[in-house]
Amino acid sequence: MSFSSIDVITTKREGGELSDAAITWLMDAYQQGVVAEEQMSALLMAIFFQGLTSRELLTWTDCMINSGETLNLRGLSRPSVDKHSTGGVGDKISLILAPLVAACGACVPQLSGRGLGHTGGTLDKLESIPGWRAALSNEEIHQQLESVGAVICAAGAGLAPIDRRLYALRDVTGTVESIPLISSSIMSKKIAEGTQALVLDVKVGRGAFIKDIERARELATTMVGLGLNHGVATVAQLTSMDVPLGRAAGNALEVIESIEVLQGKGPNDVRELTLSLASTMLELVDIDVDPSEKLDDGSAYRVYREMIAAQGGDPDATLRRAAHKDVLVAGDAGYVSSVDALSVGVAAWRLGAGRARKEDPVSAGAGVLSLVRVGERIERGQPLFEIYADDDEHLHLGRDTLVGAVQVSESQVDAAPLLLEKISG
Amino acid sequence: MSFSSIDVITTKREGGELSDAAITWLMDAYQQGVVAEEQMSALLMAIFFQGLTSRELLTWTDCMINSGETLNLRGLSRPSVDKHSTGGVGDKISLILAPLVAACGACVPQLSGRGLGHTGGTLDKLESIPGWRAALSNEEIHQQLESVGAVICAAGAGLAPIDRRLYALRDVTGTVESIPLISSSIMSKKIAEGTQALVLDVKVGRGAFIKDIERARELATTMVGLGLNHGVATVAQLTSMDVPLGRAAGNALEVIESIEVLQGKGPNDVRELTLSLASTMLELVDIDVDPSEKLDDGSAYRVYREMIAAQGGDPDATLRRAAHKDVLVAGDAGYVSSVDALSVGVAAWRLGAGRARKEDPVSAGAGVLSLVRVGERIERGQPLFEIYADDDEHLHLGRDTLVGAVQVSESQVDAAPLLLEKISG
Repeated sequence: MSFSSIDVITTKREGGELSDAAITWLMDAYQQGVVAEEQMSALLMAIFFQGLTSRELLTWTDCMINSGETLNLRGLSRPSVDKHSTGGVGDKISLILAPLVAACGACVPQLSGRGLGHTGGTLDKLESIPGWRAALSNEEIHQQLESVGAVICAAGAGLAPIDRRLYALRDVTGTVESIPLISSSIMSKKIAEGTQALVLDVKVGRGAFIKDIERARELATTMVGLGLNHGVATVAQLTSMDVPLGRAAGNALEVIESIEVLQGKGPNDVRELTLSLASTMLELVDIDVDPSEKLDDGSAYRVYREMIAAQGGDPDATLRRAAHKDVLVAGDAGYVSSVDALSVGVAAWRLGAGRARKEDPVSAGAGVLSLVRVGERIERGQPLFEIYADDDEHLHLGRDTLVGAVQVSESQVDAAPLLLEKISG
Repeated sequence: MSFSSIDVITTKREGGELSDAAITWLMDAYQQGVVAEEQMSALLMAIFFQGLTSRELLTWTDCMINSGETLNLRGLSRPSVDKHSTGGVGDKISLILAPLVAACGACVPQLSGRGLGHTGGTLDKLESIPGWRAALSNEEIHQQLESVGAVICAAGAGLAPIDRRLYALRDVTGTVESIPLISSSIMSKKIAEGTQALVLDVKVGRGAFIKDIERARELATTMVGLGLNHGVATVAQLTSMDVPLGRAAGNALEVIESIEVLQGKGPNDVRELTLSLASTMLELVDIDVDPSEKLDDGSAYRVYREMIAAQGGDPDATLRRAAHKDVLVAGDAGYVSSVDALSVGVAAWRLGAGRARKEDPVSAGAGVLSLVRVGERIERGQPLFEIYADDDEHLHLGRDTLVGAVQVSESQVDAAPLLLEKISG
């Protein structure tokens, strides 16, 4: 059946509902170049204002999935379960979580992206390990899931390829922040990846792209609905992203911190969030193992080393912080009332850990170590942040960003809980 | 000053106001290709939803005017006054009005467009006259305004050239129907044309692109505001477009009818609307002449003949209706309660008088003659429409469109008034 692009756009613009046939035609015609970029961007803006009904969203997501290949993980000897985070400052959880859940008996097919903006990307972090490669073939993914149980690699160009074009378009046309468009973008790739179960870590707060809990709840509910509708057992956790997760924000810095946690040390918030997500993942695939045991007995760390080695990385390589260093100290004494996640994220980005455009390289050793935590008593002159960069210019850029990032109060402040809410279908 | 396209789009998307500097940067960057088509179309859709404040609209329109050249008509010996109609079925008023107002002592620089869709275009109508040419240089326009007093020709590519690109983009992205975008498109060209005064004929009803009076009033008020702000004495009339204007809809058919009115005959509604618009135009330039006298004494017809001849046309050429003819007759007796302007417009278009795409040619002789009027008593079998086309295929297409276009009732119905409202600054 054939439709008119303009009719599709104006129907949505006027708040009408698009038929399944119209959406299917549209997505196909867009792939074929019959619907032009400027028509799609106008439609995306109309969707920003008018939304998509759940039926429209389901069809829209189906079309994205069907635009490419899908992996089939049903033949593996272990159940598959994945995690997706909407992005937070210092969020290195995947690096610990994937091997941990594998050590508990599931397999974790974590197909990831690179960072853009202030939240960093899992692949960028792992690429600070010498030799490690992000690009695997579908066979390699399959084999590694069978042999190691965990894989973190780049989502191949074959999965939901239309999302690449749509995302690039949304990125330049101010149409990123739309719940149906975000949901279909994330879920089309996760569903195409073939995972049986999925835990979504939806970040809310100053350092996340979603600032308020209402909107986070709406996004989580929408994504859980899409997962369930496609036969993926899906649960979402809303977690706070007002303060950075752990101490480290940066690429090698976060790998180092992840290894500490895998060795039973490291910051408590990182350990707690990892265990909470692991428990939820294991529940979804009916594995009755306590993940804290597998963290403490070294099994998770062993799987981590296998996972890195399987992708060519040297798990024994010494990861270095960047050569240029500075320390920021407290101007006032008192109790720490906040460490601003957004400032820390932007600082790490400006120090060289992140990229402004997707072609930009990132620095392995640049980043921020946050030395104090909410609730802690500090004195004037006490170090607050260590910052690292490859040159003084970047060091200054990062330093300026952190001025005022730590707030103190005269009375003791309690740290806010990390896990805010859990949303299942 | 430099801005980010995405910031401009998201500011408007969130209902914020764009600074003059941001709008100026945007329009310039769009002309230079720095702002891409897909970014402009997303912004146009955001404007569709969020509108433009009067200050934004003023700056936006200024940028459109400044994107090209402007004509200067101040040196002419007569005051200049123009008319613009938003488009109606059978609206041949310009052909009579321009020479009439010139015969009264003003000059009329009517720079026009071609028809697209069901309402027809003034240039298409005049091009049914052998030899007549629509394209004039700026000097030719100037000379003809001085010697004849009236010119109807194509708006050159140099006037508000950015409007051409914006209109083409709006046309394919479902962003035509936005009052600030319509207003700036019309007014930028009229202001660039250099006219001192302007009367806007805003059509409302079934056969117009604006169906309700509230919206017509908003469009008229917005355009009048833009005109006054740019020193153009501007008045708008809202006129009804539920029934076709006059009997003829088509190219040569409308020229023939216009000549009848110029000779003191022709349908009364065409004559009345022409005289009403002429009076308003003459008032705006302080000319105290009764236009009905200049119509009745043949002066207007003389100027018409000079105007056609000055552009290479033969005013004595016999204009022919297309060779294939059909007649539709009444199925029921009664009083005519409506003649649907939209059906008649679409029929004329399908018969060959209009174009679906701007590259399409139009038929000179195709069209519809409406033989009955609202309020008239008709009998079963009485002819309602004569239709003309260049071949039988087009004839059938047009015929089908007219089924049910005339409604009858048992009791006498009064024709609705043509002039609904007058809006001045």
